[in-house]
Amino acid sequence: MGFGDSLEQASALVVGAGRGIGLGFVRHWLADPRFDQVYATYRDLSRAGELLALAQGHTKLKLLPLDVTDEATVADAIAHLQSQTPRLHLAVYAVGLLHDSQLQPEKSLLQIQPENLLRYFQVNAAGSILLARYLLPVLKHHQPSVYGVISAKVGSIGDNHLGGWYGYRASKAALNMLIKTAALEYGRKSPQTILALLHPGTTDTSLSLPFQRGVPRDKLFPVTRTVAQLMAVIDGLNPEDSGSFLNWDGQPLPW
Amino acid sequence: MGFGDSLEQASALVVGAGRGIGLGFVRHWLADPRFDQVYATYRDLSRAGELLALAQGHTKLKLLPLDVTDEATVADAIAHLQSQTPRLHLAVYAVGLLHDSQLQPEKSLLQIQPENLLRYFQVNAAGSILLARYLLPVLKHHQPSVYGVISAKVGSIGDNHLGGWYGYRASKAALNMLIKTAALEYGRKSPQTILALLHPGTTDTSLSLPFQRGVPRDKLFPVTRTVAQLMAVIDGLNPEDSGSFLNWDGQPLPW
Repeated sequence: MGFGDSLEQASALVVGAGRGIGLGFVRHWLADPRFDQVYATYRDLSRAGELLALAQGHTKLKLLPLDVTDEATVADAIAHLQSQTPRLHLAVYAVGLLHDSQLQPEKSLLQIQPENLLRYFQVNAAGSILLARYLLPVLKHHQPSVYGVISAKVGSIGDNHLGGWYGYRASKAALNMLIKTAALEYGRKSPQTILALLHPGTTDTSLSLPFQRGVPRDKLFPVTRTVAQLMAVIDGLNPEDSGSFLNWDGQPLPW
Repeated sequence: MGFGDSLEQASALVVGAGRGIGLGFVRHWLADPRFDQVYATYRDLSRAGELLALAQGHTKLKLLPLDVTDEATVADAIAHLQSQTPRLHLAVYAVGLLHDSQLQPEKSLLQIQPENLLRYFQVNAAGSILLARYLLPVLKHHQPSVYGVISAKVGSIGDNHLGGWYGYRASKAALNMLIKTAALEYGRKSPQTILALLHPGTTDTSLSLPFQRGVPRDKLFPVTRTVAQLMAVIDGLNPEDSGSFLNWDGQPLPW
């Protein structure tokens, strides 16, 4: 028994659906008859070709532009969503930055650059709590709802035995704190909403691509498998799980 | 037995010495015969009157301007320090922002402002790891050394039962991750350096001033007591403690 048993004619939103795991959630929900409406946000239209193609073939999918580092776009997207559906049953934060043309995860202290630390924090952590703020009125209703946030095991302070990746690790530890804190506030204001931090496992996306060497084959999940596993975790959530940090197999992870 | 037993003709640095706990460390070290040289950084000369007065009376105290959000000032200050002393035995990061004329800790999600989240992160977290980068060559020598970083129990994710204070909590969780990660790198490159995250307890400074109501009298420490307690923890540190998060009484805190 869990959250998934209550889902019927449900509305779901994924933030960061242009590629990777976010796009995988969209595909999964489009094929899941429990979901009537699927909202998906993208930041860069020119890099969201697959999402665009999906939207052309599925009337239950609606796209919204949203950049988590630009609060006005968050406010606009959620206001638009609210005008179409009074309540959301499931929201997933799938935005994540590990590397791009301007930054690479630090291998050592010598590579620490304050502007990179800030950028990791802004995208991976601050965006999730801005969403938690704007989503509260849409997730708060008489049915159960879930806000699932993609975190990462390398964001576990207690589990850190390797070092490196300063900015990414710090942003995910901050993310864990922000969502744990929001779970306490939701617990008072919208007790039927469950907030969960989810480690997807290493998934075969552009985020992990430069770092896949050395990952055992059976530990590198295709997106479809990752999303199926995370949906199983989400479906099994209960109110007492709110604020927890869970592995892809549902096991709790240390902070 | 611990780090403190090895201290003799030692050099110490405190970053953020203009007021509060940082200034308390300066006073403590000036009266401690184990320390020959005390370096103290300030950000705003106009608010560092007591520190300035101390420097006029003590030749072993040297002041350095340093703003942790401005990398050039960090590089300059440490280069200047290096030109005066080849090795540092103890460095303390005592910079901390909870409130000022522009920001207050958030009571609820409605008060979330991305620019405030970023500012907390920049001052409380990013500055500490920038220092860890620049201090490595000065802390790395044949004698034991310590980099002590003032963290906070409200930065413990596992211990968070109250909620609120999103930006401050997230910055301290990020700080804990950054210093834990740096402890792993120092462990390989400078194994005689111990990095420790220290919770000072609620201390009677301008940082805690607006929040002292409700704190039991015996739980609100004068600065002198806090510094004496933290120095006892620092004196007792051993290499195996590196990367740990310790309460003012030396007990480990949960991440």
